[in-house]
Amino acid sequence: MNEKKAWIFTFGTEVVRGLVVNTNAAFLGRRLSQLGIVVEGVITLADDRKLIVSSLRYVMSEHDPDLIVTTGGLGPTHDDITLESIAEALGRPLGLNREAVEMLEEKVVSRGYELTKERLKMAYMPEGSVPIPNPVGTAPGAFIRHGKTVIICLPGVPREMEEMWVKHVENIVRELGTQYVAEGSLTVIGLPEAVLAPILRKFSEFGGSTYVKSHPRGYELSDPVVEVYISATSTSLERAKSLVKEMCDRIAEEIVKLGRSIRYYGC
Amino acid sequence: MNEKKAWIFTFGTEVVRGLVVNTNAAFLGRRLSQLGIVVEGVITLADDRKLIVSSLRYVMSEHDPDLIVTTGGLGPTHDDITLESIAEALGRPLGLNREAVEMLEEKVVSRGYELTKERLKMAYMPEGSVPIPNPVGTAPGAFIRHGKTVIICLPGVPREMEEMWVKHVENIVRELGTQYVAEGSLTVIGLPEAVLAPILRKFSEFGGSTYVKSHPRGYELSDPVVEVYISATSTSLERAKSLVKEMCDRIAEEIVKLGRSIRYYGC
Repeated sequence: MNEKKAWIFTFGTEVVRGLVVNTNAAFLGRRLSQLGIVVEGVITLADDRKLIVSSLRYVMSEHDPDLIVTTGGLGPTHDDITLESIAEALGRPLGLNREAVEMLEEKVVSRGYELTKERLKMAYMPEGSVPIPNPVGTAPGAFIRHGKTVIICLPGVPREMEEMWVKHVENIVRELGTQYVAEGSLTVIGLPEAVLAPILRKFSEFGGSTYVKSHPRGYELSDPVVEVYISATSTSLERAKSLVKEMCDRIAEEIVKLGRSIRYYGC
Repeated sequence: MNEKKAWIFTFGTEVVRGLVVNTNAAFLGRRLSQLGIVVEGVITLADDRKLIVSSLRYVMSEHDPDLIVTTGGLGPTHDDITLESIAEALGRPLGLNREAVEMLEEKVVSRGYELTKERLKMAYMPEGSVPIPNPVGTAPGAFIRHGKTVIICLPGVPREMEEMWVKHVENIVRELGTQYVAEGSLTVIGLPEAVLAPILRKFSEFGGSTYVKSHPRGYELSDPVVEVYISATSTSLERAKSLVKEMCDRIAEEIVKLGRSIRYYGC
Protein backbone atom coordinates (compact mmCIF):
# COMPACT_ATOMS: atom_id res chain seq x y z
CA MET A 1 0.00 0.00 0.00
CA ASN A 2 1.21 3.48 -0.83
CA GLU A 3 1.92 5.84 2.01
CA LYS A 4 -0.52 8.70 2.33
CA LYS A 5 0.91 12.21 2.62
CA ALA A 6 -0.52 15.02 4.71
CA TRP A 7 0.09 18.74 5.30
CA ILE A 8 -1.19 20.65 8.31
CA PHE A 9 -2.15 24.34 8.15
CA THR A 10 -2.61 26.22 11.42
CA PHE A 11 -4.02 29.70 10.93
CA GLY A 12 -3.74 32.57 13.39
CA THR A 13 -1.74 35.76 13.75
CA GLU A 14 -1.44 34.97 17.48
CA VAL A 15 0.36 31.73 16.58
CA VAL A 16 2.94 33.21 14.18
CA ARG A 17 3.55 35.96 16.75
CA GLY A 18 4.30 33.34 19.39
CA LEU A 19 1.54 34.51 21.74
CA VAL A 20 0.48 30.88 21.94
CA VAL A 21 2.54 27.73 21.46
CA ASN A 22 1.22 25.62 18.58
CA THR A 23 -0.08 22.57 20.41
CA ASN A 24 -2.66 21.97 17.65
CA ALA A 25 0.12 21.13 15.19
CA ALA A 26 1.69 18.70 17.67
CA PHE A 27 -1.67 16.99 18.38
CA LEU A 28 -2.45 16.56 14.68
CA GLY A 29 1.09 15.56 13.73
CA ARG A 30 1.10 12.88 16.40
CA ARG A 31 -2.35 11.53 15.56
CA LEU A 32 -1.68 11.40 11.82
CA SER A 33 1.72 9.77 12.30
CA GLN A 34 0.23 7.11 14.55
CA LEU A 35 -2.09 6.20 11.65
CA GLY A 36 0.94 5.72 9.39
CA ILE A 37 0.24 8.92 7.45
CA VAL A 38 3.40 10.83 6.49
CA VAL A 39 3.22 14.45 7.60
CA GLU A 40 5.50 16.35 5.23
CA GLY A 41 4.96 19.85 6.54
CA VAL A 42 3.11 22.22 8.85
CA ILE A 43 2.41 25.78 7.69
CA THR A 44 1.34 28.42 10.19
CA LEU A 45 0.08 31.68 8.72
CA ALA A 46 -1.10 35.07 9.89
CA ASP A 47 -4.82 35.80 9.28
CA ASP A 48 -4.22 37.12 5.78
CA ARG A 49 -6.22 35.92 2.83
CA LYS A 50 -3.47 36.36 0.24
CA LEU A 51 -0.99 34.38 2.34
CA ILE A 52 -3.49 31.57 2.92
CA VAL A 53 -4.55 31.29 -0.74
CA SER A 54 -0.98 31.38 -2.01
CA SER A 55 0.31 28.77 0.46
CA LEU A 56 -2.59 26.37 -0.13
CA ARG A 57 -2.05 26.59 -3.89
CA TYR A 58 1.68 26.02 -3.46
CA VAL A 59 1.19 22.89 -1.36
CA MET A 60 -1.54 21.46 -3.59
CA SER A 61 0.32 22.05 -6.84
CA GLU A 62 3.85 21.17 -5.69
CA HIS A 63 3.24 18.38 -3.17
CA ASP A 64 -0.16 16.94 -4.17
CA PRO A 65 -1.08 15.70 -0.68
CA ASP A 66 -3.75 13.11 0.07
CA LEU A 67 -4.86 15.07 3.11
CA ILE A 68 -4.80 18.68 4.32
CA VAL A 69 -5.95 19.44 7.86
CA THR A 70 -6.44 23.07 8.86
CA THR A 71 -7.08 24.64 12.27
CA GLY A 72 -8.34 28.10 13.11
CA GLY A 73 -10.24 30.86 11.35
CA LEU A 74 -13.76 29.34 11.45
CA GLY A 75 -15.28 31.74 14.00
CA PRO A 76 -17.53 34.81 13.78
CA THR A 77 -14.93 37.63 13.68
CA HIS A 78 -13.66 39.62 10.69
CA ASP A 79 -10.32 37.82 10.70
CA ASP A 80 -11.85 34.33 10.57
CA ILE A 81 -11.24 33.79 6.86
CA THR A 82 -10.30 30.14 6.43
CA LEU A 83 -13.31 28.92 4.45
CA GLU A 84 -13.45 31.90 2.09
CA SER A 85 -9.70 31.57 1.47
CA ILE A 86 -10.02 27.85 0.73
CA ALA A 87 -12.92 28.56 -1.66
CA GLU A 88 -10.69 31.03 -3.50
CA ALA A 89 -7.69 28.66 -3.56
CA LEU A 90 -9.85 25.84 -4.97
CA GLY A 91 -11.72 28.10 -7.40
CA ARG A 92 -15.08 27.19 -5.89
CA PRO A 93 -17.90 29.56 -4.96
CA LEU A 94 -18.54 30.26 -1.27
CA GLY A 95 -22.17 29.75 -0.32
CA LEU A 96 -24.48 29.23 2.61
CA ASN A 97 -24.37 25.54 3.54
CA ARG A 98 -27.85 24.39 4.54
CA GLU A 99 -26.64 21.61 6.82
CA ALA A 100 -24.26 24.01 8.59
CA VAL A 101 -27.10 26.49 9.09
CA GLU A 102 -29.12 23.73 10.74
CA MET A 103 -26.21 22.91 13.06
CA LEU A 104 -25.98 26.59 14.06
CA GLU A 105 -29.73 26.92 14.55
CA GLU A 106 -29.74 23.92 16.81
CA LYS A 107 -26.93 25.41 18.92
CA VAL A 108 -27.83 29.07 18.90
CA VAL A 109 -31.57 29.50 18.42
CA SER A 110 -32.49 26.60 20.68
CA ARG A 111 -30.68 28.39 23.52
CA GLY A 112 -32.52 31.64 22.96
CA TYR A 113 -29.77 33.45 21.04
CA GLU A 114 -30.24 35.09 17.66
CA LEU A 115 -28.69 33.76 14.45
CA THR A 116 -27.03 37.13 13.73
CA LYS A 117 -25.03 37.98 10.60
CA GLU A 118 -21.81 37.22 12.53
CA ARG A 119 -23.06 33.77 13.55
CA LEU A 120 -24.46 32.95 10.10
CA LYS A 121 -21.02 33.74 8.64
CA MET A 122 -19.83 30.44 10.12
CA ALA A 123 -22.13 28.53 7.72
CA TYR A 124 -20.62 29.98 4.51
CA MET A 125 -18.51 27.21 3.03
CA PRO A 126 -16.89 26.30 -0.30
CA GLU A 127 -19.39 24.57 -2.60
CA GLY A 128 -19.45 20.83 -1.98
CA SER A 129 -18.39 21.04 1.69
CA VAL A 130 -19.82 18.64 4.25
CA PRO A 131 -20.01 20.34 7.66
CA ILE A 132 -18.53 18.55 10.68
CA PRO A 133 -20.42 18.90 14.00
CA ASN A 134 -18.68 20.80 16.81
CA PRO A 135 -19.74 19.20 20.13
CA VAL A 136 -17.95 21.85 22.23
CA GLY A 137 -18.22 25.24 20.50
CA THR A 138 -20.46 26.77 17.83
CA ALA A 139 -18.41 26.87 14.60
CA PRO A 140 -18.88 23.72 12.48
CA GLY A 141 -15.86 22.18 10.78
CA ALA A 142 -15.80 21.32 7.08
CA PHE A 143 -14.88 18.29 4.97
CA ILE A 144 -14.03 19.01 1.33
CA ARG A 145 -12.92 16.57 -1.35
CA HIS A 146 -10.89 18.19 -4.15
CA GLY A 147 -9.50 15.79 -6.75
CA LYS A 148 -7.43 13.26 -4.79
CA THR A 149 -7.05 15.62 -1.83
CA VAL A 150 -9.27 15.52 1.24
CA ILE A 151 -9.37 18.83 3.12
CA ILE A 152 -10.57 18.92 6.72
CA CYS A 153 -11.08 22.27 8.46
CA LEU A 154 -11.24 22.38 12.26
CA PRO A 155 -11.51 25.24 14.78
CA GLY A 156 -8.45 26.69 16.49
CA VAL A 157 -9.60 26.32 20.09
CA PRO A 158 -7.72 23.15 21.14
CA ARG A 159 -10.50 21.52 23.17
CA GLU A 160 -12.95 21.94 20.25
CA MET A 161 -10.45 20.71 17.67
CA GLU A 162 -9.39 17.68 19.71
CA GLU A 163 -12.95 16.61 20.50
CA MET A 164 -13.95 16.89 16.84
CA TRP A 165 -10.88 14.91 15.80
CA VAL A 166 -11.73 12.06 18.15
CA LYS A 167 -15.49 12.00 17.53
CA HIS A 168 -15.72 12.70 13.80
CA VAL A 169 -12.46 13.17 11.95
CA GLU A 170 -10.33 10.16 12.76
CA ASN A 171 -12.86 7.85 11.10
CA ILE A 172 -12.81 9.95 7.93
CA VAL A 173 -9.02 9.84 7.89
CA ARG A 174 -8.95 6.08 8.42
CA GLU A 175 -10.86 5.69 5.15
CA LEU A 176 -7.86 7.11 3.30
CA GLY A 177 -6.04 3.93 4.27
CA THR A 178 -3.87 3.76 7.35
CA GLN A 179 -0.98 1.60 8.49
CA TYR A 180 0.44 0.35 11.76
CA VAL A 181 3.26 2.21 13.44
CA ALA A 182 5.57 0.82 16.13
CA GLU A 183 7.98 3.00 18.11
CA GLY A 184 10.87 2.57 20.48
CA SER A 185 13.82 4.51 21.78
CA LEU A 186 17.27 4.06 23.25
CA THR A 187 18.95 6.53 25.56
CA VAL A 188 22.70 6.42 25.07
CA ILE A 189 24.86 7.80 27.84
CA GLY A 190 28.47 8.88 27.35
CA LEU A 191 28.62 8.89 23.56
CA PRO A 192 28.54 12.20 21.63
CA GLU A 193 26.01 12.44 18.78
CA ALA A 194 28.85 12.83 16.27
CA VAL A 195 30.17 9.38 17.29
CA LEU A 196 26.70 7.84 16.99
CA ALA A 197 26.15 9.44 13.57
CA PRO A 198 27.93 6.82 11.41
CA ILE A 199 26.16 3.99 13.29
CA LEU A 200 22.72 5.54 12.79
CA ARG A 201 23.41 6.34 9.14
CA LYS A 202 23.66 2.58 8.46
CA PHE A 203 20.11 2.16 9.76
CA SER A 204 18.59 5.13 7.95
CA GLU A 205 17.34 2.95 5.08
CA PHE A 206 16.64 -0.22 7.01
CA GLY A 207 13.91 -2.55 5.69
CA GLY A 208 11.61 0.00 4.09
CA SER A 209 9.42 2.32 6.13
CA THR A 210 11.65 2.71 9.14
CA TYR A 211 12.94 5.87 10.71
CA VAL A 212 15.74 6.59 13.13
CA LYS A 213 16.74 9.93 14.59
CA SER A 214 19.04 11.08 17.35
CA HIS A 215 18.05 13.83 19.78
CA PRO A 216 20.80 15.36 21.94
CA ARG A 217 19.60 15.64 25.54
CA GLY A 218 22.82 16.42 27.38
CA TYR A 219 25.95 18.34 26.36
CA GLU A 220 27.73 17.01 23.27
CA LEU A 221 31.27 17.11 24.65
CA SER A 222 31.14 17.48 28.42
CA ASP A 223 28.17 15.22 29.28
CA PRO A 224 26.73 13.50 26.21
CA VAL A 225 23.26 11.96 26.46
CA VAL A 226 21.50 11.09 23.20
CA GLU A 227 18.00 9.73 22.77
CA VAL A 228 17.67 7.56 19.67
CA TYR A 229 14.08 7.39 18.41
CA ILE A 230 13.13 4.46 16.19
CA SER A 231 9.87 3.81 14.35
CA ALA A 232 8.58 1.48 11.66
CA THR A 233 5.42 1.62 9.56
CA SER A 234 3.77 -1.44 8.02
CA THR A 235 0.41 -2.86 6.99
CA SER A 236 1.14 -5.54 9.61
CA LEU A 237 1.44 -4.58 13.29
CA GLU A 238 3.66 -7.60 13.93
CA ARG A 239 5.99 -6.60 11.11
CA ALA A 240 6.22 -3.00 12.40
CA LYS A 241 7.01 -4.22 15.93
CA SER A 242 9.61 -6.73 14.79
CA LEU A 243 11.33 -4.13 12.59
CA VAL A 244 11.63 -1.76 15.57
CA LYS A 245 12.92 -4.53 17.81
CA GLU A 246 15.50 -5.61 15.25
CA MET A 247 16.73 -2.05 14.72
CA CYS A 248 16.94 -1.45 18.48
CA ASP A 249 18.92 -4.65 19.02
CA ARG A 250 21.34 -4.03 16.21
CA ILE A 251 21.98 -0.39 17.11
CA ALA A 252 22.42 -1.37 20.78
CA GLU A 253 24.90 -4.09 19.81
CA GLU A 254 27.16 -1.57 18.06
CA ILE A 255 26.93 0.86 20.94
CA VAL A 256 27.72 -1.76 23.57
CA LYS A 257 30.78 -2.72 21.51
CA LEU A 258 32.01 0.82 22.18
CA GLY A 259 31.57 0.14 25.91
CA ARG A 260 28.67 2.53 26.50
CA SER A 261 25.52 2.07 28.52
CA ILE A 262 22.00 2.19 27.13
CA ARG A 263 18.48 2.47 28.50
CA TYR A 264 15.69 0.96 26.39
CA TYR A 265 12.12 2.18 26.09
CA GLY A 266 9.47 0.12 24.35
CA CYS A 267 11.85 -1.73 22.02
CA MET B 1 9.61 53.35 7.95
CA ASN B 2 8.53 50.26 6.08
CA GLU B 3 7.62 47.20 8.08
CA LYS B 4 10.06 44.33 7.75
CA LYS B 5 8.66 40.90 6.94
CA ALA B 6 9.98 37.60 8.27
CA TRP B 7 9.36 33.88 7.77
CA ILE B 8 10.45 31.20 10.21
CA PHE B 9 11.46 27.68 9.10
CA THR B 10 11.71 24.97 11.74
CA PHE B 11 13.19 21.75 10.41
CA GLY B 12 12.78 18.30 11.95
CA THR B 13 10.76 15.16 11.27
CA GLU B 14 10.21 14.89 15.05
CA VAL B 15 8.44 18.28 14.96
CA VAL B 16 6.04 17.54 12.07
CA ARG B 17 5.29 14.20 13.73
CA GLY B 18 4.33 15.99 16.94
CA LEU B 19 6.93 14.17 19.04
CA VAL B 20 7.94 17.60 20.31
CA VAL B 21 5.90 20.79 20.60
CA ASN B 22 7.38 23.60 18.51
CA THR B 23 8.52 26.02 21.20
CA ASN B 24 11.28 27.34 18.90
CA ALA B 25 8.66 28.84 16.57
CA ALA B 26 6.91 30.50 19.52
CA PHE B 27 10.19 31.91 20.90
CA LEU B 28 11.23 33.35 17.53
CA GLY B 29 7.74 34.61 16.66
CA ARG B 30 7.55 36.44 19.97
CA ARG B 31 11.04 37.93 19.77
CA LEU B 32 10.60 39.10 16.17
CA SER B 33 7.15 40.58 16.85
CA GLN B 34 8.49 42.47 19.85
CA LEU B 35 10.98 44.14 17.49
CA GLY B 36 8.11 45.24 15.25
CA ILE B 37 8.97 42.71 12.54
CA VAL B 38 5.90 41.19 10.87
CA VAL B 39 6.05 37.39 10.95
CA GLU B 40 3.95 36.24 7.99
CA GLY B 41 4.42 32.51 8.32
CA VAL B 42 6.14 29.59 10.00
CA ILE B 43 6.96 26.48 7.95
CA THR B 44 7.88 23.24 9.68
CA LEU B 45 9.26 20.49 7.46
CA ALA B 46 10.40 16.91 7.72
CA ASP B 47 14.15 16.35 7.20
CA ASP B 48 13.80 16.04 3.42
CA ARG B 49 16.00 18.01 1.06
CA LYS B 50 13.42 18.31 -1.73
CA LEU B 51 10.79 19.65 0.67
CA ILE B 52 13.21 22.17 2.17
CA VAL B 53 14.54 23.45 -1.17
CA SER B 54 11.05 23.75 -2.68
CA SER B 55 9.58 25.57 0.33
CA LEU B 56 12.48 28.01 0.64
CA ARG B 57 12.21 28.85 -3.06
CA TYR B 58 8.44 29.32 -2.75
CA VAL B 59 8.76 31.75 0.17
CA MET B 60 11.62 33.71 -1.39
CA SER B 61 9.99 34.05 -4.80
CA GLU B 62 6.38 34.62 -3.71
CA HIS B 63 6.79 36.59 -0.47
CA ASP B 64 10.24 38.22 -0.80
CA PRO B 65 10.90 38.43 2.96
CA ASP B 66 13.49 40.69 4.58
CA LEU B 67 14.41 37.96 7.02
CA ILE B 68 14.31 34.17 7.18
CA VAL B 69 15.22 32.45 10.44
CA THR B 70 15.68 28.67 10.42
CA THR B 71 16.10 26.22 13.30
CA GLY B 72 17.33 22.64 13.23
CA GLY B 73 19.37 20.45 10.90
CA LEU B 74 22.85 21.85 11.65
CA GLY B 75 24.22 18.82 13.52
CA PRO B 76 26.52 15.91 12.62
CA THR B 77 23.98 13.24 11.57
CA HIS B 78 22.91 12.16 8.07
CA ASP B 79 19.55 13.94 8.34
CA ASP B 80 21.07 17.31 9.30
CA ILE B 81 20.72 18.87 5.85
CA THR B 82 19.75 22.51 6.39
CA LEU B 83 22.89 24.19 5.04
CA GLU B 84 23.21 21.97 1.97
CA SER B 85 19.51 22.52 1.20
CA ILE B 86 19.85 26.29 1.56
CA ALA B 87 22.91 26.23 -0.73
CA GLU B 88 20.83 24.39 -3.34
CA ALA B 89 17.83 26.72 -2.94
CA LEU B 90 20.05 29.79 -3.38
CA GLY B 91 22.11 28.27 -6.19
CA ARG B 92 25.33 28.70 -4.25
CA PRO B 93 28.12 26.14 -3.85
CA LEU B 94 28.50 24.44 -0.45
CA GLY B 95 32.05 24.65 0.85
CA LEU B 96 34.17 24.30 3.95
CA ASN B 97 33.95 27.59 5.87
CA ARG B 98 37.35 28.39 7.37
CA GLU B 99 35.97 30.43 10.26
CA ALA B 100 33.49 27.67 11.12
CA VAL B 101 36.32 25.11 11.10
CA GLU B 102 38.19 27.29 13.59
CA MET B 103 35.12 27.45 15.84
CA LEU B 104 34.85 23.67 15.77
CA GLU B 105 38.57 23.18 16.38
CA GLU B 106 38.39 25.44 19.41
CA LYS B 107 35.46 23.45 20.82
CA VAL B 108 36.40 19.93 19.85
CA VAL B 109 40.17 19.63 19.53
CA SER B 110 40.90 21.77 22.58
CA ARG B 111 38.92 19.26 24.68
CA GLY B 112 40.83 16.29 23.36
CA TYR B 113 38.26 15.09 20.81
CA GLU B 114 38.95 14.46 17.15
CA LEU B 115 37.61 16.62 14.34
CA THR B 116 36.03 13.60 12.61
CA LYS B 117 34.27 13.67 9.24
CA GLU B 118 30.90 13.91 11.06
CA ARG B 119 32.04 16.93 13.07
CA LEU B 120 33.68 18.64 10.11
CA LYS B 121 30.34 18.33 8.24
CA MET B 122 29.02 21.10 10.50
CA ALA B 123 31.46 23.57 8.89
CA TYR B 124 30.19 23.08 5.31
CA MET B 125 28.16 26.18 4.52
CA PRO B 126 26.76 28.00 1.48
CA GLU B 127 29.38 30.27 -0.10
CA GLY B 128 29.38 33.69 1.56
CA SER B 129 28.08 32.49 4.94
CA VAL B 130 29.30 34.07 8.15
CA PRO B 131 29.27 31.48 10.96
CA ILE B 132 27.56 32.39 14.26
CA PRO B 133 29.24 31.12 17.46
CA ASN B 134 27.33 28.53 19.51
CA PRO B 135 28.13 29.14 23.20
CA VAL B 136 26.24 26.02 24.36
CA GLY B 137 26.66 23.25 21.76
CA THR B 138 29.09 22.49 18.94
CA ALA B 139 27.26 23.31 15.67
CA PRO B 140 27.85 26.91 14.56
CA GLY B 141 24.94 28.89 13.14
CA ALA B 142 25.11 30.75 9.84
CA PHE B 143 24.32 34.25 8.60
CA ILE B 144 23.73 34.58 4.84
CA ARG B 145 22.80 37.68 2.88
CA HIS B 146 20.96 36.92 -0.40
CA GLY B 147 19.73 39.98 -2.30
CA LYS B 148 17.50 41.87 0.13
CA THR B 149 16.94 38.78 2.28
CA VAL B 150 18.95 38.01 5.41
CA ILE B 151 18.95 34.31 6.30
CA ILE B 152 19.91 33.22 9.81
CA CYS B 153 20.32 29.51 10.59
CA LEU B 154 20.22 28.35 14.20
CA PRO B 155 20.36 24.91 15.85
CA GLY B 156 17.18 23.06 16.85
CA VAL B 157 18.08 22.41 20.49
CA PRO B 158 16.10 25.17 22.25
CA ARG B 159 18.72 26.15 24.84
CA GLU B 160 21.37 26.53 22.08
CA MET B 161 19.03 28.45 19.78
CA GLU B 162 17.81 30.82 22.50
CA GLU B 163 21.30 31.59 23.81
CA MET B 164 22.55 32.33 20.28
CA TRP B 165 19.53 34.55 19.64
CA VAL B 166 20.20 36.63 22.74
CA LYS B 167 24.00 36.80 22.42
CA HIS B 168 24.49 37.17 18.67
CA VAL B 169 21.36 37.25 16.54
CA GLU B 170 19.15 39.94 18.00
CA ASN B 171 21.78 42.59 17.24
CA ILE B 172 21.97 41.45 13.62
CA VAL B 173 18.18 41.61 13.34
CA ARG B 174 18.05 45.09 14.88
CA GLU B 175 20.19 46.33 12.00
CA LEU B 176 17.31 45.53 9.62
CA GLY B 177 15.40 48.35 11.31
CA THR B 178 13.03 47.68 14.17
CA GLN B 179 10.04 49.45 15.67
CA TYR B 180 8.42 49.77 19.07
CA VAL B 181 5.49 47.54 19.97
CA ALA B 182 3.00 48.15 22.77
CA GLU B 183 0.48 45.53 23.89
CA GLY B 184 -2.59 45.33 26.08
CA SER B 185 -5.58 43.11 26.60
CA LEU B 186 -9.13 43.17 27.88
CA THR B 187 -10.95 40.17 29.31
CA VAL B 188 -14.65 40.45 28.60
CA ILE B 189 -16.99 38.36 30.73
CA GLY B 190 -20.54 37.51 29.70
CA LEU B 191 -20.43 38.55 26.05
CA PRO B 192 -20.18 35.91 23.29
CA GLU B 193 -17.47 36.44 20.66
CA ALA B 194 -20.13 36.78 17.96
CA VAL B 195 -21.53 39.82 19.79
CA LEU B 196 -18.06 41.35 20.18
CA ALA B 197 -17.26 40.76 16.50
CA PRO B 198 -18.92 43.91 15.03
CA ILE B 199 -17.30 46.08 17.75
CA LEU B 200 -13.82 44.71 17.09
CA ARG B 201 -14.25 44.94 13.32
CA LYS B 202 -14.47 48.74 13.69
CA PHE B 203 -11.02 48.76 15.30
CA SER B 204 -9.37 46.38 12.84
CA GLU B 205 -7.94 49.26 10.79
CA PHE B 206 -7.40 51.77 13.58
CA GLY B 207 -4.65 54.35 13.14
CA GLY B 208 -2.19 52.35 11.05
CA SER B 209 -0.12 49.53 12.52
CA THR B 210 -2.56 48.33 15.13
CA TYR B 211 -3.92 44.86 15.68
CA VAL B 212 -6.88 43.53 17.60
CA LYS B 213 -7.95 39.92 17.99
CA SER B 214 -10.43 38.07 20.16
CA HIS B 215 -9.59 34.75 21.79
CA PRO B 216 -12.46 32.70 23.24
CA ARG B 217 -11.49 31.42 26.69
CA GLY B 218 -14.84 30.20 28.03
CA TYR B 219 -17.85 28.67 26.29
CA GLU B 220 -19.44 30.83 23.57
CA LEU B 221 -23.07 30.39 24.64
CA SER B 222 -23.19 28.98 28.15
CA ASP B 223 -20.31 30.87 29.80
CA PRO B 224 -18.67 33.36 27.45
CA VAL B 225 -15.25 34.74 28.36
CA VAL B 226 -13.28 36.46 25.60
CA GLU B 227 -9.78 37.86 25.79
CA VAL B 228 -9.25 40.81 23.45
CA TYR B 229 -5.59 41.29 22.55
CA ILE B 230 -4.51 44.70 21.30
CA SER B 231 -1.14 45.81 19.95
CA ALA B 232 0.30 48.77 18.10
CA THR B 233 3.60 49.20 16.27
CA SER B 234 5.33 52.54 15.75
CA THR B 235 8.74 54.16 15.38
CA SER B 236 7.82 56.02 18.59
CA LEU B 237 7.27 54.07 21.81
CA GLU B 238 5.00 56.83 23.14
CA ARG B 239 2.87 56.68 20.00
CA ALA B 240 2.57 52.87 20.21
CA LYS B 241 1.54 53.06 23.88
CA SER B 242 -1.02 55.81 23.31
CA LEU B 243 -2.56 53.93 20.36
CA VAL B 244 -3.04 50.84 22.54
CA LYS B 245 -4.50 52.89 25.37
CA GLU B 246 -6.90 54.66 23.05
CA MET B 247 -8.06 51.39 21.46
CA CYS B 248 -8.52 49.79 24.89
CA ASP B 249 -10.56 52.73 26.15
CA ARG B 250 -12.78 52.94 23.12
CA ILE B 251 -13.44 49.18 22.93
CA ALA B 252 -14.15 49.12 26.68
CA GLU B 253 -16.57 52.03 26.34
CA GLU B 254 -18.68 50.11 23.81
CA ILE B 255 -18.65 46.96 25.92
CA VAL B 256 -19.62 48.79 29.11
CA LYS B 257 -22.56 50.32 27.18
CA LEU B 258 -23.78 46.73 26.75
CA GLY B 259 -23.62 46.34 30.53
CA ARG B 260 -20.75 43.85 30.62
CA SER B 261 -17.75 43.69 32.90
CA ILE B 262 -14.15 43.93 31.80
CA ARG B 263 -10.73 43.24 33.27
CA TYR B 264 -7.81 45.26 31.86
CA TYR B 265 -4.23 44.14 31.49
CA GLY B 266 -1.48 46.57 30.59
CA CYS B 267 -3.69 49.03 28.70
